Amino acid sequence: MRMVDVIAKKRDGQALTKEEIDFVIAGYTNDEIPDYQMSALAMALYFQDMTTEERVNLTMAMVESGDQINLSDIDGIKVDKHSTGGVGDTTTLILAPLVAAVGVPVAKMSGRGLGHTGGTIDKLESIEGFQVELDGKTFNQLVNKNKIAVVGQSGNLTPADKKLYSLRDVTATVNSIPLIASSIMSKKIASGADAIVLDVKTGSGAFMKELDDAKALAKAMVQIGNGAGRNTIAVISDMNQPLGFAIGNALEVKEAIDTLHGHGPADLHELCLTLGSQMVYLANKANSIEEARSMLEDAIQSGKAIEKFKTFLSSQGGDASVVDDPTKLPTAAYQMEVKATADGYISDIIADEIGIAASMLGAGRITKDSTIDLAVGLVLQKKVGDPVKEGESIVTIHSNKADVAEVIEKIQQAYTITEQEPAENRLVYGVIDQ
Amino acid sequence: MRMVDVIAKKRDGQALTKEEIDFVIAGYTNDEIPDYQMSALAMALYFQDMTTEERVNLTMAMVESGDQINLSDIDGIKVDKHSTGGVGDTTTLILAPLVAAVGVPVAKMSGRGLGHTGGTIDKLESIEGFQVELDGKTFNQLVNKNKIAVVGQSGNLTPADKKLYSLRDVTATVNSIPLIASSIMSKKIASGADAIVLDVKTGSGAFMKELDDAKALAKAMVQIGNGAGRNTIAVISDMNQPLGFAIGNALEVKEAIDTLHGHGPADLHELCLTLGSQMVYLANKANSIEEARSMLEDAIQSGKAIEKFKTFLSSQGGDASVVDDPTKLPTAAYQMEVKATADGYISDIIADEIGIAASMLGAGRITKDSTIDLAVGLVLQKKVGDPVKEGESIVTIHSNKADVAEVIEKIQQAYTITEQEPAENRLVYGVIDQ
Repeated sequence: MRMVDVIAKKRDGQALTKEEIDFVIAGYTNDEIPDYQMSALAMALYFQDMTTEERVNLTMAMVESGDQINLSDIDGIKVDKHSTGGVGDTTTLILAPLVAAVGVPVAKMSGRGLGHTGGTIDKLESIEGFQVELDGKTFNQLVNKNKIAVVGQSGNLTPADKKLYSLRDVTATVNSIPLIASSIMSKKIASGADAIVLDVKTGSGAFMKELDDAKALAKAMVQIGNGAGRNTIAVISDMNQPLGFAIGNALEVKEAIDTLHGHGPADLHELCLTLGSQMVYLANKANSIEEARSMLEDAIQSGKAIEKFKTFLSSQGGDASVVDDPTKLPTAAYQMEVKATADGYISDIIADEIGIAASMLGAGRITKDSTIDLAVGLVLQKKVGDPVKEGESIVTIHSNKADVAEVIEKIQQAYTITEQEPAENRLVYGVIDQ
Repeated sequence: MRMVDVIAKKRDGQALTKEEIDFVIAGYTNDEIPDYQMSALAMALYFQDMTTEERVNLTMAMVESGDQINLSDIDGIKVDKHSTGGVGDTTTLILAPLVAAVGVPVAKMSGRGLGHTGGTIDKLESIEGFQVELDGKTFNQLVNKNKIAVVGQSGNLTPADKKLYSLRDVTATVNSIPLIASSIMSKKIASGADAIVLDVKTGSGAFMKELDDAKALAKAMVQIGNGAGRNTIAVISDMNQPLGFAIGNALEVKEAIDTLHGHGPADLHELCLTLGSQMVYLANKANSIEEARSMLEDAIQSGKAIEKFKTFLSSQGGDASVVDDPTKLPTAAYQMEVKATADGYISDIIADEIGIAASMLGAGRITKDSTIDLAVGLVLQKKVGDPVKEGESIVTIHSNKADVAEVIEKIQQAYTITEQEPAENRLVYGVIDQ
C-alpha cells in the first residue's frame, strides 16, 4: 500500500477502507509516513469528509496507537463526560460527586489543559493536600469503594492523535468535523469509558460558534461512540456568555460547593442536572431521564451530593473542611468591582473576552510551563438579561496585583448594556442520541 | 505573515495576494516553510483553484526563485515552443531549423528528460561530434549568426518549481491545473522566451486524456503567458496514437531529416506547419498565419529548411553529412517485423503502450542515471485508418538484443484491428490564444 494512493483516493471523494486507515495511522505514529503526506491527507479530508464507518475506523486506529486504560476491575457502567470547552465551565467538579452520590461509578482521568483557567486537576489542587497521582490499582479500588476518583493524565494515550493534532494546528486543518470528532472520541475511548455524555458548546465563547456546526459535531461524535460500541449522547448547550458566575480555579471550586449545596448559579445548576441525568440513565441507574433527574435533585436536597464531595476529597488526601469553610481556599489579595457604564439591561457578554480577562490575572496557562495562580479570577455579578444601574458592580475581580486597569477595560468592552430587555437566552438547544 | 493563515485563506476559497504568494515561494525555496505546510496548501489549491492573477503571480515567483536566462543580446523576438509530451514527438528537431530558415531566432534550451525516448538533447547526440554545451556568449552569437542554437539545460532555473514538483508527486497534488500550468510556464519564462507556442496534447497517450482538460490547461497557460507579458498561444493536438512513424532517438533524427526534405509522415509534417506558422507569426515575421504557413512550405520545398539544419549541426561541431547519408546515424543490430494478427483496418494504437515497448528496447530513461541506447526504437508501418492484411508488418523493431518476444506482444496488444474502417482521426482540435 502506498500513502500517495490513499491520499488520491480520499482526494477523489472515495471512502477509505479499515486497512487503509490502519495503514495511515500506524505508519504516521511510527514516523514511516512523513508529515507532508499526512497534512495533504488532512486537507483532502477537510474537503471530502468521511463516512461514519471511516470515522469509527479512524477513531479506533488512534485508540490503538497507544496505551488504553483498563477499567474492567471497576463495577458497573463507567460513564465519562466531555465538554468541548468554554468559559467558566465548572460542571465536572459538580457532576463527578453528584452522579457518584446516586451510584454511578466515576473513574475520571482529567487534564491540566491550556486555557483561560486551569483544568479540573488544577482546580482540585486548590484544595490543600489533594493528591492527583494514584496508581491504577488504588484508583480502581477507590472507585469501587466510593464510586468516585479523579487522577491526572498518565500513560501514552492516543499518540497518533497528539501528533496529528500538532500537525493540523499549523496546516489549517483543525476545523474538520471528522478530525475533531475522532480526536475527542479516541481520547475518551482510550481512557476506558463504557458510555460517554458529551457537552457540545455553541455560541460566541465556544469552538463551534454556530448551532448547526455544533449539531454536526455532536452527531459525528455520537455516531462514532455508538459505532465503537460505547453508548453515547450529546447535549448542545449555550456558550454565548460564561457559564455560572465564577471564572478562576479556587473560585470555581467554591462555586461547585455552592451548587452541590443547591444554591449555585441557575444555569450551572440546570446544566449539571441535564448532563447528570443523561449520565445516570446511560449507567443504567434509572429507567428514564426524568427519574434520573429527580434522583439527582434528591441527592442535592438531601445533602448526599455534598457528602460525596467530602468523601471524595478526603479519600484522595484533601482537606474536606473547605466544603464547610470555603475561606480555607486560596484567596487573592485584592477584590475590585467593575462598574456598569450605563443604565439598562445586560444584553451580551462576550465569553471569550471574559476568559482572556481572567487569564490576564494569571488564572490560566499560556504555555505548557506557565504557572497558574489558583486564587485569582472573576465573579460575574450580572449576567445576560439582568437589569443594571450605572455604577453598579457587574463583575468582581479577584487579583494578586493592584493594577487591573486593563482587565477592567477588557471586561467593560465584553459587556453590552441596552435600554431594551433582551430576549431570554436558551441554555440547552437539544439532545442528540443518534 | 504566517503560512498557516495563507493556507486557511486558500482553503476558504479566497484569492491570495502577490505578497502572500511571494512569501510562500521564497520561504519554501529557502526551506523556511516546511514541506508539510506546502503540501497542505497544494491540496487546498487542488480544491480551490487560483484566479488568473494568482497564477501569473505564482509563475513569476517561481521564475524569480532561481537563475533567469538573459537572451537580450539576441536580435528579434525569441519564440519558444513547448509540448506537454507524447509518444514519437519529433517536432522540436524539425521546427527549430524550419522557423530559423525564415528568420525566426531559435535560442533553445532543451532537456534530456525521463520518458519513452530521450529528450531533444539526447536525440541530437546521435549525430557524431555534436556539442550540447555552449557558454552563454557563444550561444547568443550563434543564434545571431545562424538564427539557431540548441544547448542542454544549465543553471539553477526555477528551484521552487523543482522542489514543489517533487512534493506534489508524493502528495497526490500533481493533477491541478494552476500548479501544472505555472510549473510549465515558469520554466519557459525563466529560459528567456519573449513569446511561447504551446503544443498541448490530448488523448490516450497524453497527460490530459480528455479534450476538455487539455483545453483548460491550454487556456490556463496562455493566460499566464499573456499576463506575464509573453505573447502565448496553444495548439491542441491529438495524441490518441503516436505522432509520425518513428519512436527512438536516431530513428527520430532520421524522420526529422525526411520531414525537412518534405517527405515525412503526413501528421508530423502537418503539426510542424501548424506550430511553426504560429511561431513565425508571434515572431512578427509574417502578417498572418496563412502567410507564415506558406513561408514555411516554401522553406521546405526550396531546400532552405534542410540547409539550415546542416548549418545548425556543423556550427555546433556535428557531422552534417548525416543529412545526406542517414546510415551514418547509430544503427541497431537487428530489425524485426511485428505482424498484423488479422485482416481489417487499424482502428486504435494505444500510444502509451507503444512508448513502453520502445523503452523496453532501451530507447528511454527509467531513472536519471539510466543509459539510453540511441540506435533502438520502433518504426510504425501502419497508423490508424490504414488497411492491413494478416501477416503484413505493422511495426518494425530496431533492437540490439535478439529476443524481442515481449516487445512484439506489447505492440500487438496496443494495436486494434477492426473489420469496419474507423472514422478519420483529427490531428488539430483548435488554437487557443486567450
